[in-house]
Amino acid sequence: MSLQVVKAFEPLRSVTAGLWKYRPRSLKPNTTNCISCLFNFANKARFSVTHVTADPIGNCHREPVAPSFTSAEGAAKTDWGTKKNKRKVRLRLTDIMSNPEIEAKLAPLRAAVLEQGNLVRELKVKGAPEIDLKRAVAELKSRKKLLEDRELELTPSVVTFDRSKMEDLLKRRFFYDQSFAIYGGITGQYDFGPMGCALKSNILSLWRQFFVLEEQMLEVDCSILTPEPVLKSSGHVDRFADLMVKDVKTGECFRLDHLIKNALEKLSKDKAATAELKAECEDIVIKLDGMNKQEMSDVLSKYNIKSPLTANDLTEPIEFNLMFATQIGPTGLVKGFLRPETAQGIFVNFKRLLEFNQGKLPFAVAQIGNSFRNEISPRSGLIRVREFTMAEIEHFCDPTLKNHAKFQSIAETRLTLYSACNQMDGKSAQQITIGDAVKNSLVANETLGYYMTRIHQFLLMIGIKAECLRFRQHMNNEMAHYACDCWDAECLTSYGWVECVGCADRSAYDLGQHSQATGIRLVAEKRLPDPKTVEVCEIVPNKQTLGKTFKKDAKSITEALAALSLSAVNEVEQTLKDKKEFLLSLDNGSEFKLTPDTISVKHSTKTVHVEEITPSVIEPSFGIGRIMYALLEQNFQCREGDEQRCYFTLPSVVAPLKCSILPLSNNVEFNPFIRQLSTALTKAELSHKVDDSSGSIGRRYARTDEIAIPFGITIDFDTLKEPHTVTLRDRDSLKQVRLGINEVIDVLKDLSIGKLKWHQVMEKYPVFEQQEATK
Amino acid sequence: MSLQVVKAFEPLRSVTAGLWKYRPRSLKPNTTNCISCLFNFANKARFSVTHVTADPIGNCHREPVAPSFTSAEGAAKTDWGTKKNKRKVRLRLTDIMSNPEIEAKLAPLRAAVLEQGNLVRELKVKGAPEIDLKRAVAELKSRKKLLEDRELELTPSVVTFDRSKMEDLLKRRFFYDQSFAIYGGITGQYDFGPMGCALKSNILSLWRQFFVLEEQMLEVDCSILTPEPVLKSSGHVDRFADLMVKDVKTGECFRLDHLIKNALEKLSKDKAATAELKAECEDIVIKLDGMNKQEMSDVLSKYNIKSPLTANDLTEPIEFNLMFATQIGPTGLVKGFLRPETAQGIFVNFKRLLEFNQGKLPFAVAQIGNSFRNEISPRSGLIRVREFTMAEIEHFCDPTLKNHAKFQSIAETRLTLYSACNQMDGKSAQQITIGDAVKNSLVANETLGYYMTRIHQFLLMIGIKAECLRFRQHMNNEMAHYACDCWDAECLTSYGWVECVGCADRSAYDLGQHSQATGIRLVAEKRLPDPKTVEVCEIVPNKQTLGKTFKKDAKSITEALAALSLSAVNEVEQTLKDKKEFLLSLDNGSEFKLTPDTISVKHSTKTVHVEEITPSVIEPSFGIGRIMYALLEQNFQCREGDEQRCYFTLPSVVAPLKCSILPLSNNVEFNPFIRQLSTALTKAELSHKVDDSSGSIGRRYARTDEIAIPFGITIDFDTLKEPHTVTLRDRDSLKQVRLGINEVIDVLKDLSIGKLKWHQVMEKYPVFEQQEATK
Repeated sequence: MSLQVVKAFEPLRSVTAGLWKYRPRSLKPNTTNCISCLFNFANKARFSVTHVTADPIGNCHREPVAPSFTSAEGAAKTDWGTKKNKRKVRLRLTDIMSNPEIEAKLAPLRAAVLEQGNLVRELKVKGAPEIDLKRAVAELKSRKKLLEDRELELTPSVVTFDRSKMEDLLKRRFFYDQSFAIYGGITGQYDFGPMGCALKSNILSLWRQFFVLEEQMLEVDCSILTPEPVLKSSGHVDRFADLMVKDVKTGECFRLDHLIKNALEKLSKDKAATAELKAECEDIVIKLDGMNKQEMSDVLSKYNIKSPLTANDLTEPIEFNLMFATQIGPTGLVKGFLRPETAQGIFVNFKRLLEFNQGKLPFAVAQIGNSFRNEISPRSGLIRVREFTMAEIEHFCDPTLKNHAKFQSIAETRLTLYSACNQMDGKSAQQITIGDAVKNSLVANETLGYYMTRIHQFLLMIGIKAECLRFRQHMNNEMAHYACDCWDAECLTSYGWVECVGCADRSAYDLGQHSQATGIRLVAEKRLPDPKTVEVCEIVPNKQTLGKTFKKDAKSITEALAALSLSAVNEVEQTLKDKKEFLLSLDNGSEFKLTPDTISVKHSTKTVHVEEITPSVIEPSFGIGRIMYALLEQNFQCREGDEQRCYFTLPSVVAPLKCSILPLSNNVEFNPFIRQLSTALTKAELSHKVDDSSGSIGRRYARTDEIAIPFGITIDFDTLKEPHTVTLRDRDSLKQVRLGINEVIDVLKDLSIGKLKWHQVMEKYPVFEQQEATK
Repeated sequence: MSLQVVKAFEPLRSVTAGLWKYRPRSLKPNTTNCISCLFNFANKARFSVTHVTADPIGNCHREPVAPSFTSAEGAAKTDWGTKKNKRKVRLRLTDIMSNPEIEAKLAPLRAAVLEQGNLVRELKVKGAPEIDLKRAVAELKSRKKLLEDRELELTPSVVTFDRSKMEDLLKRRFFYDQSFAIYGGITGQYDFGPMGCALKSNILSLWRQFFVLEEQMLEVDCSILTPEPVLKSSGHVDRFADLMVKDVKTGECFRLDHLIKNALEKLSKDKAATAELKAECEDIVIKLDGMNKQEMSDVLSKYNIKSPLTANDLTEPIEFNLMFATQIGPTGLVKGFLRPETAQGIFVNFKRLLEFNQGKLPFAVAQIGNSFRNEISPRSGLIRVREFTMAEIEHFCDPTLKNHAKFQSIAETRLTLYSACNQMDGKSAQQITIGDAVKNSLVANETLGYYMTRIHQFLLMIGIKAECLRFRQHMNNEMAHYACDCWDAECLTSYGWVECVGCADRSAYDLGQHSQATGIRLVAEKRLPDPKTVEVCEIVPNKQTLGKTFKKDAKSITEALAALSLSAVNEVEQTLKDKKEFLLSLDNGSEFKLTPDTISVKHSTKTVHVEEITPSVIEPSFGIGRIMYALLEQNFQCREGDEQRCYFTLPSVVAPLKCSILPLSNNVEFNPFIRQLSTALTKAELSHKVDDSSGSIGRRYARTDEIAIPFGITIDFDTLKEPHTVTLRDRDSLKQVRLGINEVIDVLKDLSIGKLKWHQVMEKYPVFEQQEATK
């Protein structure tokens, strides 16, 4: 079977010579790994795989693969597909708890997760060694994965989805495609064509309206190039790295954890493998997630793992920082990085922003912009890329006051929450109102809950399906180093549940780090309920004797003394008392002996009305590319009975173009009406497309459906008669109505912002049937 | 005099210790250069200079300078300014040709330019050596500069502008400020705060509406990280560089042309300088613009030029490429750059875009995005930065058909054009309708003229003043390597005329370059007026004998023959005829002897209906940061009689916030009305700010004026009475009207999109006088 696949690829090699470097390295059936390998390979060689089936327990049986190859210049196209060759991936409902039959099948898997979850809890309570804990967590994750995969398989499918068909459409109508393809392309970088760009810009403009405008956030736009010290403070210079190894001869790079996993799985599946070896390999794979560099390096040598492509030796593991480095300015001395997230730009501007907000907490700052991560092996289309647009919010609030003024207005919203606890207990996600979730401390505080709800509302508004959206809480061990609670909004796609929006409580981590590095206090003042009396202890220099003793150094000594912290002052006082002198060292290295006649320590009290606090930060962080991908996938449809007529059911609020204008034929009498409508639509700020090409009206409608245009105006011979009328067609229902040419613009305006629904239009205007029949 | 300045700087040194490195290096009066030097220095040390005066002939006399220093953290602030210390920079009208008195003063300067312009023309006609031509052009430029400076000085001033005051406001209300300031900052990088970001996003959204929507352009969004080969083709790898030298000890970098110019000017102004030396120096400075690396290096050694800061030796000149370099992917083998312009992303996608447009020309593609240039010494605030947002349009058209369908609709628009010819003749810019300009071939074609007019309309719409806007044509010698005609939209600022939008005819340069590099034909098909018969000449292999002779190589031979160009086929035919054999070399190095029995050459004719053309590209390219700067400067005002109350007269369409809501006092009865209005404004998508802080209403209005809020609603005690009314205030006229709380939203909606003008509001509603009096 696998040979057939390899054979099917063979002819491509000559066609794509120079465009791809890799041969599929493991094409044995019965591993999910080989499927991903196949897609990686296909991705690299830039053709799409149109047939892989999976049986219900997840083993894959490949039948002769029919890749449709699109050559680099996008012109030559070899379509080897046949009608039967389709890879089916199912999207499912998340609420399957109610079906007892399915539950019976899942019960043992749930029990296995619970058992392991309890073990992890127990180890934590006992304070077990970290390595044991890591191992237990890795096993827990693997059991969770098994449960989740099975859950997805057993859920009644609601959508049949053919990824390759969608990808073909996205390429063909240039929603997006690989960047620099005429130069051979770069993996992990995509260019958005007219439709993708319009979709993206509509999503961002709605985002601005929904978050920045409605919540009166402060939007900022900060630099991408970031000097090293900033990212040193944030932890990215030290921690934002993946381990990799290189082929010593070719320089080919491999992500180390992926490499070991693949190598050991291969090894343990070898017929010659003993039961002992198999167990050993499986054990390592489970532990892999928690291993450090040395441990992984030991595995490499123990099993003598070589490059899977060339069998050459591999280098020692290298920590590869995922940030793109560059030099700022001509000297070559200022090291900088392309920012890996937009958040830091907000944190370093905290003082200016607090001042702009007249010193008051809470306030939220938003930023939309590009970030960059130099992935070792980018994959999965828009999901893991090197350059991506984020929309981030940093909500600064008093750490002791995380309630939210508008929480009550959304408290009744039901969300699908998959808590850390449920994950450890082998339970499913649950539907619950956010009010109850906060009341039960399932979600830590109102502000976090408020943002989760707003994220939920936003995603549904732009077209994400409620049944394909859940919030998954990070388990303790997967939380980023800065976070103290984190919920990911995950969208279900053919790649599984994909994190599209993170919603984290970053506590005071970032402001604290930047304060520490710069010495600038990034704090807010909080009015005390009652004024407080505090003891003040300061060093008073005796100006006269100090000046006499130290001459021109007296000034810097005075300054240094004024800058001492409270504890340092106490130390000075003690030392003076004990030894009758104190040795002061300045930054420039000079030292001065101070005695009780040059300085004294004065104690006093003062009344303070405010205290300084470092605000907590709640951060909703949107990955725009991932949201777009999930949106496109969840809205991809084919017409019943005609699988070649595909379209996107994107809501009109985000659809790239709002309307098409199609004359029934190229009769010149239609032209004034085309111009009149186009001008009126432009004036109403409604993006549209005139298609007066020669195809049949049905074919032209199909073309507008492909680019998700929700409504179409047809100009026909009745339009020429007075009163002038046109037909208006709805993409999703295929229904048409007839209405006056002067009315249609207002109707479209309301439809496009969602103020009017199509069924209301159907109620108001006479249905028109003729035209679809003539296609 | 100069000593006073230096002295005024001295105390700063200790305040800013560590923040600036440079001492002003040339502070002699009587050079405009020392002013720019002063500002560079001030810019580096991050304080603003508040007093420099210039006498009418351009010599500068500095009086004690009063810098106001803002420390890195934006907290400590030392304002040394007094009311009298103000630097005045005048914005002027461009049409001064009519004033005979002024013209008389300018006449000798105009004559000098004309004389030199004619010399340049003559040299071109004669085909004079390039070095002579360069020298003449440099002299022409210098005479032009003299004329232009004088023109500006003599124009009656219309605005008094105090740059430091504006910069102080921009910082204080965080329109924008230096990035990473808490880490010491990076020159040439700016973060936009809430008001700057909103202004920018409003400008971009209007741009989209005005260009993309109205002209039905295809908008794309391409990658920033660009692999080297792409930028090799575009010419950026080889040509996008400035020459610099480094201080051998400190590593400090200097732009070579600036360095030589400063050094020689200093030398020639030395009292000991002979007349001969002076002439020599002036001669070199004039020639500098056209010198190559070696020539400049020779100047360095001849005059023994050292580092102006340390007097250390300098390195040989280094070509410093202005692109930021990085590595894409983990191997370190794929070199990439941050794009220096967005245009290339469009060119490499040309085929996809043409296909999206169903193969038809003309069509225009737009892109908004960030670009990066690693300037050796960034300066002048937002005008020369390292990271900037561009909005570019590439209009692809048939090179023989550069007319524009909508040209007639704008033909009567009057633009201020400063043609290359007028520049060479010492004449001023002229006002002319674009229709006439194209008719007279002053502007090359309708498409170029159409875009220039649209740029003009757009800039006026967002608030650029007509009298401070001109289009300057590039002279032959300053045109980029790719352009065949180019007009810059220049805005007048206190830095002089600043290029804000370029509008170039790039001809077929870029598509040609990328075609050549990739072998992929970036062409469009053009229907021939009549079908054409063309001769076809192809090699026909004799399959049987070829197969017999070359066995398995026969296939690659056949392929190689099929790929031969027409001229190569002719060569094969001739060689076969002459020598009875032809030696075919394949790419892999193998050679095959072909004889007349294995191949023959067949001649035939075929009828073709289309021809392939490489489209021409017209490129309007907007520098958003520069436009924003010019806009802010041209709209900066102080209230008559109260110079401390500054504001921006930004039109409501671009104003960061559209409206303020101010309760007269913090009476709780006002609160429901605040909430009602805020909710209604949000629903109407009108950005706004509630200021219920305790300041007087007048002081709060002044604060909203500072951030350019055009309209303000006041809630007062009359609001509490039925029917509920509020007052609406206009920022620019300070007038107020009283109207119903239910009417105000619709009025604001129309005001904010410019559909309604303030004077119309004044006509409709009763004027309200009381409140401003109570401030």
